[in-house]
Amino acid sequence: MRIRLTLAYDGAPFRGWQSQSGGGAVQDFLEAALSRCAGGVRVAVTGSGRTDAGVHALGQVAHADVPDAFGDAAAWQLALNALLPPAIRVMRCRAARPDFHARYSATGKIYDYLVWTGDVLPPHLAGRCLHFRRPLDRARLLQAARMLEGRHDFRGFAANRGTPVHDAVRTLRRVRASWRGPLLRLRFEGDGFLYKMVRMLAAALLRCAAGQDEPAVLESRLAGRAGGGQRQVAAAGGLYLVRVNYRRAQSG
Amino acid sequence: MRIRLTLAYDGAPFRGWQSQSGGGAVQDFLEAALSRCAGGVRVAVTGSGRTDAGVHALGQVAHADVPDAFGDAAAWQLALNALLPPAIRVMRCRAARPDFHARYSATGKIYDYLVWTGDVLPPHLAGRCLHFRRPLDRARLLQAARMLEGRHDFRGFAANRGTPVHDAVRTLRRVRASWRGPLLRLRFEGDGFLYKMVRMLAAALLRCAAGQDEPAVLESRLAGRAGGGQRQVAAAGGLYLVRVNYRRAQSG
Repeated sequence: MRIRLTLAYDGAPFRGWQSQSGGGAVQDFLEAALSRCAGGVRVAVTGSGRTDAGVHALGQVAHADVPDAFGDAAAWQLALNALLPPAIRVMRCRAARPDFHARYSATGKIYDYLVWTGDVLPPHLAGRCLHFRRPLDRARLLQAARMLEGRHDFRGFAANRGTPVHDAVRTLRRVRASWRGPLLRLRFEGDGFLYKMVRMLAAALLRCAAGQDEPAVLESRLAGRAGGGQRQVAAAGGLYLVRVNYRRAQSG
Repeated sequence: MRIRLTLAYDGAPFRGWQSQSGGGAVQDFLEAALSRCAGGVRVAVTGSGRTDAGVHALGQVAHADVPDAFGDAAAWQLALNALLPPAIRVMRCRAARPDFHARYSATGKIYDYLVWTGDVLPPHLAGRCLHFRRPLDRARLLQAARMLEGRHDFRGFAANRGTPVHDAVRTLRRVRASWRGPLLRLRFEGDGFLYKMVRMLAAALLRCAAGQDEPAVLESRLAGRAGGGQRQVAAAGGLYLVRVNYRRAQSG
């Protein structure tokens, strides 16, 4: 039976999503728990994509093929949550079609990047948002966000993973900024994201909003021209994988 | 110069507020940072009261007498936040009158107790609220909360600290329950609280709301009679010291 898992995790205690030699990644804990339920048979898990160390997830999606004998999806959810550390939770678990693939069936993702703009970062937000102290111009922030939306070659907003990016064209459907007091939430909805792309977009937006860069540098950078501003990567702890979208037919 | 500090801290990493042999308490970190700013002279800090290990603070108040030479209250705030771990923050710091006393000048406190009532506790709330899975009757919860309000002898809601409580009469001005989705916030406002009183009140309210006890047991327990229900103490991680109140004349 193929199951589809919706996972939330606190990024701080783990070495990212992707299985690591020596363990400590979210995938390692998940596969260990699945395998234990499967009576010691190794069960592999496939996620919608990686998240780096420190990056949080509210709605990461993964699939796994598990023995039917153990029980239904609800039984798997209960058992996994009993075995996993409290910082990893299976928020939902259901039976999936055999052709459902957490990565290849995905049609898009939503990420949030959280920024605390007040003078003092409250202790309960440590490691859970970026502390950015420069005053932000909200109109400039929105102007810059609008420039990023649409279909672009985003290689100017991708970190090098060692291999060149062949196809860096992605559609960023929407970039939204919302405030709750001094807490700024930047929400990015797109059909796909390059390595460290959201954290580079967030850093670039903040530089524009703080007056450190002109919004025009974003256009240069989207066009792959030089002079596209500082290529900074905002801290991992501010990033949340909020949701992975699937076509309705493949979501079951 | 006497300074008044408003402190927020995450309770999880510390051994409570009160200084411990071997260190690790919030007061230990604070006194070490103050003393370092004072050029190595020991600076003692007095809090409004203790919080146990695991209990959080959003607005703990403390005072300290510090050398004038270092700078004004703003300089102290900056220096302390640079030296303290991110899980302890000085949210405000100001010069106080010499007769201001964090404990004896206090006229009341506000505590919140947070309860997650959904099936799965989101990982970012682990250690930050109680996970209570039984269905709650909101009307019964409010009925029970009303019974606790007012001036009562609360010795039935106090843990034994080794010495008998002589005066256990306190005024609980208000007990409020508010919901945000599956997250329940119980807010307690009173002129003073006995040892573990809020956590015992929270546990008792939840038992009533879940139908495990009749609200009448609260009356027996307030009257000091036997049969006052289970004397349970709700988990430390759900408790937040939100605010300490002072008379206006002594507040600053």
